[in-house]
Parts: sequence; C-alpha cells; structure tokens
Amino acid sequence: MTAAKPVISTKPTLGIGIVGSGLMAKAHTMAWRNLQAVYGEIPFDIKLVILADATEDLARAGAEQFGYAEYTDSWEDVVNHPEVDLVDIVTPNWLHRDIAIAAAQNGKHVWCEKPLALTATDAAKMAEAAEAADVVTLVGFSYLRNPAVVHAQRLIEAGEIGTPVSFTGVFAIDAMTDPDTPITWRQRREEAGSGALGDLGAHVIAMARALVGEFDSVAALNKITVADRPEPAGNFGYGERAADDAPRQAVENDDVTMVLAAFDSGAIGTLEASRVSAGRAYDLGFTVTGTKGAIRFDQQHMYELQVRLASDPEGSTGFRHLPVGPAHGDFGVLWPVDGINISIHDLKFFEAYDLVMAIHEDRKAWPDFRDGQRVCEVMDAIEQAAAEGQTVALSAAGEDAK
Amino acid sequence: MTAAKPVISTKPTLGIGIVGSGLMAKAHTMAWRNLQAVYGEIPFDIKLVILADATEDLARAGAEQFGYAEYTDSWEDVVNHPEVDLVDIVTPNWLHRDIAIAAAQNGKHVWCEKPLALTATDAAKMAEAAEAADVVTLVGFSYLRNPAVVHAQRLIEAGEIGTPVSFTGVFAIDAMTDPDTPITWRQRREEAGSGALGDLGAHVIAMARALVGEFDSVAALNKITVADRPEPAGNFGYGERAADDAPRQAVENDDVTMVLAAFDSGAIGTLEASRVSAGRAYDLGFTVTGTKGAIRFDQQHMYELQVRLASDPEGSTGFRHLPVGPAHGDFGVLWPVDGINISIHDLKFFEAYDLVMAIHEDRKAWPDFRDGQRVCEVMDAIEQAAAEGQTVALSAAGEDAK
Amino acid sequence: MTAAKPVISTKPTLGIGIVGSGLMAKAHTMAWRNLQAVYGEIPFDIKLVILADATEDLARAGAEQFGYAEYTDSWEDVVNHPEVDLVDIVTPNWLHRDIAIAAAQNGKHVWCEKPLALTATDAAKMAEAAEAADVVTLVGFSYLRNPAVVHAQRLIEAGEIGTPVSFTGVFAIDAMTDPDTPITWRQRREEAGSGALGDLGAHVIAMARALVGEFDSVAALNKITVADRPEPAGNFGYGERAADDAPRQAVENDDVTMVLAAFDSGAIGTLEASRVSAGRAYDLGFTVTGTKGAIRFDQQHMYELQVRLASDPEGSTGFRHLPVGPAHGDFGVLWPVDGINISIHDLKFFEAYDLVMAIHEDRKAWPDFRDGQRVCEVMDAIEQAAAEGQTVALSAAGEDAK
Amino acid sequence: MTAAKPVISTKPTLGIGIVGSGLMAKAHTMAWRNLQAVYGEIPFDIKLVILADATEDLARAGAEQFGYAEYTDSWEDVVNHPEVDLVDIVTPNWLHRDIAIAAAQNGKHVWCEKPLALTATDAAKMAEAAEAADVVTLVGFSYLRNPAVVHAQRLIEAGEIGTPVSFTGVFAIDAMTDPDTPITWRQRREEAGSGALGDLGAHVIAMARALVGEFDSVAALNKITVADRPEPAGNFGYGERAADDAPRQAVENDDVTMVLAAFDSGAIGTLEASRVSAGRAYDLGFTVTGTKGAIRFDQQHMYELQVRLASDPEGSTGFRHLPVGPAHGDFGVLWPVDGINISIHDLKFFEAYDLVMAIHEDRKAWPDFRDGQRVCEVMDAIEQAAAEGQTVALSAAGEDAK
Repeated sequence: MTAAKPVISTKPTLGIGIVGSGLMAKAHTMAWRNLQAVYGEIPFDIKLVILADATEDLARAGAEQFGYAEYTDSWEDVVNHPEVDLVDIVTPNWLHRDIAIAAAQNGKHVWCEKPLALTATDAAKMAEAAEAADVVTLVGFSYLRNPAVVHAQRLIEAGEIGTPVSFTGVFAIDAMTDPDTPITWRQRREEAGSGALGDLGAHVIAMARALVGEFDSVAALNKITVADRPEPAGNFGYGERAADDAPRQAVENDDVTMVLAAFDSGAIGTLEASRVSAGRAYDLGFTVTGTKGAIRFDQQHMYELQVRLASDPEGSTGFRHLPVGPAHGDFGVLWPVDGINISIHDLKFFEAYDLVMAIHEDRKAWPDFRDGQRVCEVMDAIEQAAAEGQTVALSAAGEDAK
Repeated sequence: MTAAKPVISTKPTLGIGIVGSGLMAKAHTMAWRNLQAVYGEIPFDIKLVILADATEDLARAGAEQFGYAEYTDSWEDVVNHPEVDLVDIVTPNWLHRDIAIAAAQNGKHVWCEKPLALTATDAAKMAEAAEAADVVTLVGFSYLRNPAVVHAQRLIEAGEIGTPVSFTGVFAIDAMTDPDTPITWRQRREEAGSGALGDLGAHVIAMARALVGEFDSVAALNKITVADRPEPAGNFGYGERAADDAPRQAVENDDVTMVLAAFDSGAIGTLEASRVSAGRAYDLGFTVTGTKGAIRFDQQHMYELQVRLASDPEGSTGFRHLPVGPAHGDFGVLWPVDGINISIHDLKFFEAYDLVMAIHEDRKAWPDFRDGQRVCEVMDAIEQAAAEGQTVALSAAGEDAK
Repeated sequence: MTAAKPVISTKPTLGIGIVGSGLMAKAHTMAWRNLQAVYGEIPFDIKLVILADATEDLARAGAEQFGYAEYTDSWEDVVNHPEVDLVDIVTPNWLHRDIAIAAAQNGKHVWCEKPLALTATDAAKMAEAAEAADVVTLVGFSYLRNPAVVHAQRLIEAGEIGTPVSFTGVFAIDAMTDPDTPITWRQRREEAGSGALGDLGAHVIAMARALVGEFDSVAALNKITVADRPEPAGNFGYGERAADDAPRQAVENDDVTMVLAAFDSGAIGTLEASRVSAGRAYDLGFTVTGTKGAIRFDQQHMYELQVRLASDPEGSTGFRHLPVGPAHGDFGVLWPVDGINISIHDLKFFEAYDLVMAIHEDRKAWPDFRDGQRVCEVMDAIEQAAAEGQTVALSAAGEDAK
Repeated sequence: MTAAKPVISTKPTLGIGIVGSGLMAKAHTMAWRNLQAVYGEIPFDIKLVILADATEDLARAGAEQFGYAEYTDSWEDVVNHPEVDLVDIVTPNWLHRDIAIAAAQNGKHVWCEKPLALTATDAAKMAEAAEAADVVTLVGFSYLRNPAVVHAQRLIEAGEIGTPVSFTGVFAIDAMTDPDTPITWRQRREEAGSGALGDLGAHVIAMARALVGEFDSVAALNKITVADRPEPAGNFGYGERAADDAPRQAVENDDVTMVLAAFDSGAIGTLEASRVSAGRAYDLGFTVTGTKGAIRFDQQHMYELQVRLASDPEGSTGFRHLPVGPAHGDFGVLWPVDGINISIHDLKFFEAYDLVMAIHEDRKAWPDFRDGQRVCEVMDAIEQAAAEGQTVALSAAGEDAK
C-alpha cells in the first residue's frame, strides 16, 4: 500500500470567455467542464475565465452556476480579457456578428452558435475577419457531430449509396403551437432574422450540405400561423408563461417553411422547418437516397442509423437498423458498447474537442465560419424565394467561396 | 332437426365486364366475388359476365382464373355486351379514355383505375361523357378508402386539427431501383403519361385533396435516375427478369418527383413520388398539421392513425396511436375488434361497395371522374412546373369545375 | 377481332360444408370463393354445398351471405351430405370434437379452427379418427402461414440463427379490458376450455413449436381480472354491448396467462396471452434468439421481418428490416412487389391452398390434427402448472407422438 | 458598463472520494463536475478529493482524467481520508461490501453501483452498517431516475392504470454474443455473482419493484450460451479484443435468464436478462398493464412514454406517445422543451442531486441500501429457482424489512 499522492498538471491553459448565460451557455459549459473527463486527454487545461450577459445580475447568476471566475455585463470585457483565448458566443443571433468580429480582431478563437448571422453578408464579414486574424472558428451545428450523422457522411463519401438522388429533411417542433406561448426574441426579425428557418431549418440545411453537397436552387413557401403572442412574464425563452392580460406583440418571421431544393450534385429534395408542428415534439431527421442505397436517420432514434448500402450482399432489401456505437464518430469516448442513447449535450463534447484540437494542431475546425456563411446564403435564398414566389438560384460567387 | 333447405335469391343482377387481366383485375375481381360475403347484404347479385384482354390467350386465362363467363380479345365486346351493366377498366393508362367514353355512351357504369387519363384534357372528356350519359363513375384511389384515411378526413372536417397549416405526403417504392429491372409500359410516355408521378404521386395528390382541399400552385423537380432498362423476357410488370443480353429501351418519364405545393386553404406542403427509393419497399404516408392538431398516417401501419386533436384534454402533448377499428370507415364489415391489419385487397371491397350502392341509390360515387380529372390537372401542372423550373398556378377554370 | 367465347371447366368438384356462420365462417368462405382467383390454378372447382348453424335463421342468413347452396340447423346434415367432400368447422371450441370425428368417420376431409379441442385427450381422439379414416386435416393456426413466419422458419432451419437460445412470444389484445364488455362463450369453461390461453396463447404456442421445437416443461401464472360480465343484448362475440341492467355471469377462465417455458432444443423463454391488455389492441409477435442470430416479428408489422443472421457480412450488427415479399411463403400469389401489407384474410388463402393441394396430392397438410393435439398438450400443462404453482414436464408419451 | 467582477462562493464543501476509474467512474464524475451547472444551485461546493484504483498507474491516470486532487492504490485511503464526506463505489461487485461498510463506519455517505452485493446477506450487512452510522446511501439504479420512469411511477401511484395486472420487463444486450469476445470479471462468479441477471436483470427487478411493488415468488430458467471465452489483451471490459491464441477461461454465470414472477400486489409477469441477445444492442424496457390502463417504455425511446390511462376521455383506445419533458422528473433542469433525448449520463445528474439533497436535508435518498438488499433477495431467489427447477417464494423476513 502507498499513501495518496497529488495530481499535478503541466499543460498550458486555454481560457474560455463566454457571452450569454442561457440554454446554450449551459450546454457549452457542460462540455468545457467535462471535456478532459470524457476524452481522457486533451492538450490544455480548460479555464473558465469570464461570463458576460446583458445585466450584471444575469451575468453573476450565470457565472456562479457555471463556474466562471468572473462576470460582467459587457461583452467587450470578454473579447478584451487577456486570459481569454477563446470566445464562446451563445447570444441571440443579432449579436453574433459584432462579438465574433471583435474577438477575432483580438486574436481570440471563436465558437459561435448557429445561425452564424442574420444575413449571408454579415456572415461573410465574420468569416473574413476570422481568416484575416488566422483564428480557429466553429459554428454550433451540433447535429453534424452526431455519430450517426458522421457515419452517414462517411458512407456516402465511400460511395455506399451511389450517386445522390434525393434528400428530404425535417426539423419540426411543437414548442410554439399554442398561440398563448409568449413571444421571444426568436419571433423578432431584428434579433433573430428568420424564424423556424433560422432556428431549425439551418440545421437541416447544414446536414443536407454535409450529405449531398451545395445547394443549386430553391423554391419555398412559408407561413406565420400565430399572428401575435403575449409578452412573457419573465425572460424570453421557450415555454415561459405570460399573464392572462399580457399585451401581445406581432410575430415577425416564419413559423413554418417548406423548401424544394436542387443540389449541385443533381440530387433533388425537400426541407421542412416548423416550430408549430402540433404533436411532433422534436422531429428532426432525413432520408438520403442514392442510385445504389439510402440512409435514414432521425434524432430521436439517434442510437441507430438505417442503412441500405451498395456493399450489402446481393439481393438484400430493406434497411439495416445499425446500432450506433464506438465505430461511429466520437461515440467511443462515451460508451464502449453499441446502441446506448447519447444526448445533445454529448454532441457538444464532440464540437468542443474538434475545436480544441484544431487550435492545438493549427488547423481548421469544421463547420467553420465559411460553412456558416454558406448556410446563411441558402437561408437568404429561401426567404427570397418565398417572398417572390419563384425559384432562386444560389450565386456562383457563393460556390466559388467553397 | 330439420332437413337442409336451398338458398334462393330474388335480387336483380349487376353484370360486370372487365378490361384487363393483370394485378388490378385480380384485386377488383376478388372484391366482386366476395362483396356480399363481406357486407352481408348488397342489393344485387353480382354476375361476372366477360373479360377482355389484348390477346385471346390472355383473355381466356384471365376469365378462367377469375371466373368470368366469357372472354374476348376486344374491349368493344365488353362495352357492347347486353348483360354488362358496369365496365371495370384495369388496363394501362392510355386505354382508359376510349374505353370509358364508349362504356358511358352505351349507358354502362364505370370503375376505372388511376390515374384517370394521360392528360387532364382527356380526363375532362371522360367526365363529360359520363355526366352526359348519367352513369355512375369511380376512380380507383384505393387509399382514400382506408378506414384510417376516412377517419382522418372526418376528424379534419370536424375541426379537430383547426385550420390546415401543412401537408407532407410520400409514396416511394423500391421496385425499380435496380437498373436491370426490365422496362414496362409504365416507363413509356405514350402508354403511361408521367412515371412515378402518375403511378404513385397520383395517390398522394388524391389524399392531399381529400384532407386539405384543392391545390393552388405547385413547383416541382423530377429526375430519371435510370436512363434505360432491358426489355423483359415475358410480359411487362414489376419484378420480371430480363435476359442478360436483352436490348435496352429508354425510360421516358420521371423515376422520382418532388413537389412544393400551396393549397387554396392556405396550407403549404411537399409531395414525394419515387419508384427508385432504395430501401423503402412501400413508403406511403402523410402528416397533416393544423393550428390545433395533427394527424399522421402511413400505409404500412394501417392498423393505426396517429392523432393529436383539438378535443384532446387540456395540456395533452404527443400523438395518440389510435388503433383503427370498427368505428372507422367500413372496417367493421371485416373485423369487430381494433387494430387488425387489413390489406389493399380489402380496400377494393370498400370501393366496390360504394360504387354498387351509388348505382342502387342513383347518386354519385366518390372519387368520381371529376375528382380524377382534378388529380390529372395537378399532375399536368407538376410536369409543367418541373419542365419550366417555375411555379405553376392551378387554373381558375379547374376550380370552377369543383 | 373475335367474338366473345364462353369459359368451360372440366375439373372435378370439391364440395364444402361448413359448420358455423360467424367471423371465421366469413374468413374461410372468403378464401374458398377466391382461391382460384388468387392462385390462378387449383385442381378443383370449389362448390359451397351447405352451411349449418345453431338455428335455421342463423343458418339461412349465413348461407345467403356467404353463398352456400343449402342451409340447416343440424351439423349432422353437413357431415352426412353426399356432395360434401370437406367439412369446415368454425364453431365454438366445445363442438370441434364431435363434428370432426363424425366428419372423418364419413370420409370427409376436415379444416378445424383452433384450439383443436378442449383437452389434449379430446384432440388425440380427433387425430386418431382422422388417421383411421385417412382424411386430410388442417388446424387453423393462420399465423403460421404468414409469409414472414414461414420465412423465419426457413431461416432457422437453415441455421441462420445458430442454436436456439430463447423464444419470447406474446398475443395480447384489448378487447375485453372493459369490465362491462359482455360475456361470450369464450369466457365459459365448458364451451371454450381455457380463456386467453386457448384463444390467443394457442397461436403463440404453435409459433414457438414451429420455430424452436417441442416444449419440455412449463411454469405458469394466470389471472381472471374481470370476475363477471354482463349478458350481451344479442349474440355473443367480441364488442357487443349489454343493457345497463343486464345480469352478470362469472368469468370462468383466464384473462391473462404468463408462461415460463423450456424447450427440448435447450431454448428457454416466456409466453404471454392476454385479452385484457389495455392499450395494446393487437399485440402479436415473437423474438427468437440463437447463438448466431435472431429474428423478430410482430403481426401488425407483417410487411417486414427483422433479421440478424449468421450469413450477414462479418461485423454486421443490428437487425435488417426485411420487407416481406414474393420470396417469402405464398406472398407472391397476392403481390409481385415487396412490403405490401397483407391481412389475416389473406392467410386463410394460404391455409386453404395447402389443404386443397394436400387432398389433391394425397399427403398431409400442416399443421394437422396431431399438431393441434400437441398444442393442446402444452395448454393442458400450462393450466396444470398455474393451478399447482409448480413446473410441469411435458409427457414423454407426447414426445413419442411427434 | 461595469468592469468584470470575481465570483465568490461561501458554501460548505462536499468532499468526494471515489473507488474505481472505469466506465461508471467516468459517469459519476461527469455528474459531480457539472451538478451545479445543471441544477443551477446546490447546497455544497463539490470537491473531488481522491480516487483509488487497483494499481497506482490506474489510479493516477483516473485522477488526472477525472480531476481528482489525489490518487492511491488503496481504497482504505479513500474511506479514511479526512476531506472525504462521501465515498463513491464504482468497482467490480465483489468489492462493494467491504468498502461500503468501512466507509459507513467512518461516517461517510455512500453512493454504490448496482448490484449492491454478491448476496442478499452481504447487502443486508451493508444496509445495517449504514443505518448504524446514520449515513445516507444510494444505489446506482440509474434507470429509475429516467424522467419517463419517474412519471410512470407517479401515474401508477395516482391510480392511472387501476390495479396492476402484469409487468413484463427486459434488459438484453448484444455485447457478449460473439464467443470470442474476451472474458471479463462479469463472467466470474466470485467477482460478479450472477451474470446477465446481476448486470442487467437487476435494473429490471428494480423497475418492477418501483412500478408494481414487491416480488412474491419467482420461477426461473437460465443458460450459459458461451462456455468459455478468451483472456483479454488488456484490461477487462466490454468490447476489448483478445489475441487469436489467447487461453480461454470458463464462463461461470448466466448469459441469459428468464423469470416468471408473482408480485404481492397480485400482478404477474416475466423478466428477461441477456448479454447475448443477437441483434438487440440495447433493449431495455417494460410494459405495465393494469385493470384500467397501461404504460410502456423502452430506454432507446426515452424521449417518450406510451400511456393508456384511466383518466383518458371516455372511449379512448391505444397509447398516447407522451413526449417526455420538463413536466416529468428532473428533465426540466436539462431542457425546457419536450421530446429531447437525454442520456444515461444525464440520469447520473439526477441520482447525484437526490443524494446531495438527502445529505443536505438529513433524509433518505432513494433507492437506498435497503432497496439494494431487496433486489439482491429477488436475485438470490431467481438463482435458486433456476438451480432447483421450482418456484421460490420471497421470504416473509424480507418483506418485514421493507
């Protein structure tokens, strides 16, 4: 028997400054705090340096809850903090641009939630700033990190479905079906940009790009199904109740958007985004069909991927329901056996790890700000198509930027 | 104990003449032969008078198999036969028009498989001939008869989903994914009209109309994924093999079609039709979402309907998986308990019964030739939209004809 | 063009006499009436000779509905009728024995619904009578005819799951959950024998035997959950309502039975039968696991079989959801493409065809009265095990009879 | 704008000492590290004091990965450490007893993984030691914390299924199907006790107790399907490969166990535990049926609970698929909207929080060592029943201890 001994670390520190203290602040911080516990070995000691939010009270509460050493009501304090190496942006969409550009200009790496910006033009400026400063960027398209989706991508790249024929994707939630669910910043044009499209559809667009490539053109229809909503009793956010006599504010962006899309690869397809899908609490998934196979996935069954592959034995039919496991993506850092459900919080580990390793290895992370820009370009085209009632081509300029 | 006694019928006869001896001839005849056994009481004795097919051999084989008293290689013999009261058209699409018009002009009632015609113009002529002759018509959109779909229609009419917001529907099969699956008449423009659209999409269009009303406009994309296919060894039809060195013929219509649709009701949605959906053997279903509820259905789970309804108890979430049973449509003539799987063959009983009762009660059957015409109008608009790459409005004329 | 010609048959006649006019009478008759239409060619002209039921009114109504030439209130008229070649027994269970033995003694072939008899002793007498008379017998375990189940059996026989390890099976319905659902003959010991066990569990026992072989021993528990039920307003049967003040009669047999089973093959498992399974309208299925693979099935998803097979590519995991189609059982006589839902009525075609061909080819049909007897032996052992609270071994005598 | 300010905590510290550095050490530590981030406010500052494992190398690696301040190769160092308030036992089963008793005797609270002990006798000693020392104990039956399961328990307690009629539960995994998967401590009698029963079945037993109450009697069958397995190349654990010529060791406990159970409540049911369930990667679930409703759950669909309830509107049938959300258990500390998948790691937050609050509030946590003992009693009875081939009653003594 030996006596207990102390653990000593000699690793460099990676200082994290975060802007925002809401749901995604929690998700990101949970990843930061357990990143080494999950991966076993990471090249930095993560230090939670500072948290900013709109008021000092919000910021202090957030910093206490999440364990940041300091708090502030000014995001400038975060991007200017000398101990901060990486700025983590988990604010409403309209703030992404200025924080990200300032952070990059200060030489900080940036993790930014999606959608990257209110417009593709803004997103392009963010990407340019990051490239000019040579910092690593990552956009929080968590579902791309899902081991099932990562594996789908690998299978398609390996030719396992042949040439892509069609992509159909959906992200529909029930959270705003009730017309008395209070308004949030997500329903306001100046703060959120588009509605269901930017909040939910952006994920589907990102998955479509990852699986069947760039968009060539889009046609679209959208609707506001709830014209106005009551002001909430407290802060904005999904699910908070309003007083019975609360004043109502107009909803300014799409509750539901339907898209018809053509891809550069020749594939065709449809996308659906809805925050008013009665009954469907969390319906996120896709079917990708090719000339020789197909892959189906939905997020609620993230423990499995349905696959019909070119390499299946001659005469095979139907989908194998492949349990997701250590062979797929980064699943193995969580569990050594197949088929165990993981969570969206787990996906944030995978994002954070790629970001940290990209910094360590001086390479790009994925998806970066250019990817975020491309998604914004598709969203802009969808909004234009819906407004004009006709097909909109994605610009050649956009394609050059790939 | 009594001695056995004979059964004596005094009902009038309804003479059936059928044109075609393939898969749908079997399905229709199975319904004719067992209609009274299933329903217990129908107002006619059904008599299977005559069957026609392209050759005398095919016709004799069909008549023997299905139990028709006579056979012929001329469809004119059917429409002219004095004992025939109802002409049942189960031929390739291009023959529907002439047979139906001749039958109607001879005063025969008509049951015609879908799609009703190669073009909406042809369909309109058929509808006019039938109306001029005052005969009862029915188009074989079997899935509309599914007790689950009938119940969905009732629920929507009763306001149980509020105002329709979206409709997404699909009919995708795997049957033609293999490029060496032989060509059939369904791949030939002059015999079939459109491809997956007319064969499969027509059903989705019919369900959309039944659930959320008339189409207002469509945008569409389509593809031929298999450029040519070998000539079959024997007759055409799904699944028959070709010789290894069989000559190949060009596929002339869509293997897959994707549609973006706006409806007069204000609902928006998408439709998918594919005969090359690898892995998906028989994927037919829809989601209809409204402001207060939603209904989901797929044909392979026809034993249940997923419902989220306005009348659900306050605070309810998620879908009830309602077992389909005697309370829904005509299910009860088959089984007295819930949740038993029925089949497409069973749906043909329901069609035949409505047709027979419409004849008996001198009323319209549903969906009749005018409904079939409307579906053709939507298909024509979809093909035009796909060809031109822009949104096509359904004509006001079409709407007047409702 | 030729003139129409008449169809002429020269095949021998197979005369059918049926006893009973209820749900199974309908199912059997639908099969008889369409057997040739479905299979294309059968070696007999089927003639529906006579139908018997308990009263002349019931018998006449049944004969009219189903198209039998004569009717009677005496089953003796059926077994004695000179034109009857095959007696079809679709009565309550307690009548099976006497009718079947009389039919066999008169040289008639017999199709009898399950369970074959109230006791294994009775079933043995029936089997002996049939063997003595050298007539063909069939017991109506329809689910064994399901193409998915037939294919499962083939796969297991081919070694595709290795050595059987476990079988778990269930047949649970919701029909009798409501304590005010009226009593039927199925709740009466003298007419039905056991309750859920004989009505539902018998099917699971039959499937277990078909898939993993004979039972070695059983332990069991059962319950009556509804002590008494009201008398029905009309005839017995599932689902008929009673008057509010209807007198109540005691339920005399199991509403639910749970079984622990060991098989001669070394496999172990459980079986569940319930007619009071709230929420589960029609839950019939099994999982068979072996040392190298497994097969899962449930009747409501009869369009597919879940398979994990020894011949799967190295490293495969999870189940392929194999669409059922023409490659499986007799599916192909119904549809040429995979994944189409068929129905319980369709299974009766498959039973009837095997029976007819067995008669024609002078061979045994399957499952015959000896199989029915074996199922009764297992049911008797289960009831004994439940009554005595201990494990009961299946007799060696029973095994010799295999 | 204000300058950034530091966060200062004045809460008391709760010192954690952990024994083990494997999969459950990771899961527990992830919970400890993020407990406040998840719950927002907990009454202690958690301090990770010390980690022990069998060798100093393992212990150092574990402490570094998980962030414990010290490491040791002696579990005595943990239970004796003055800064340790709570001992967290995540070792192979055979070590639970001595560590837990020593920890309790030193006045440390204890979180112990399941099964609590190799025998009910050992478990009782542990419970007695904890009660004598008045420390809080918790046994790691994580699935009991699943919000869906918590809600099921509430619904049953509220009478929503009426009187329990049946419970059927399963925990079956595919991890050990391959006979060349190396042996681990879990296959050794002296280290693990039973096999699939203790590893997997223990969870089903715990859920059965939570939902339908104490076991009254059990009958059981079990099998070893893989007689011997190769020694692993490295450490034990699921999934690690062996050398081709690795020596093989005998498997000493059940690969699969099937149980028939009667409960004090009158309910009857079956339980299945298997580590060799080919195809079923992670099949964990149950159906509880009562006289007026039923609840179904499976872990892979943990985002929903299937409910058929007494309070459903008159005439309702089928199951509502209730999305799990903030209204259920502690789900709301993770996500504000329904239907998002959570993970087994998330369940550990819920366990840790109950434990911490029980310490703070000087109350029992649940399930505690007495609950763990009861599960061991049921497992002992199952093993005895399987060995003797007859039904075993749970002792009255056991029931008195409730």
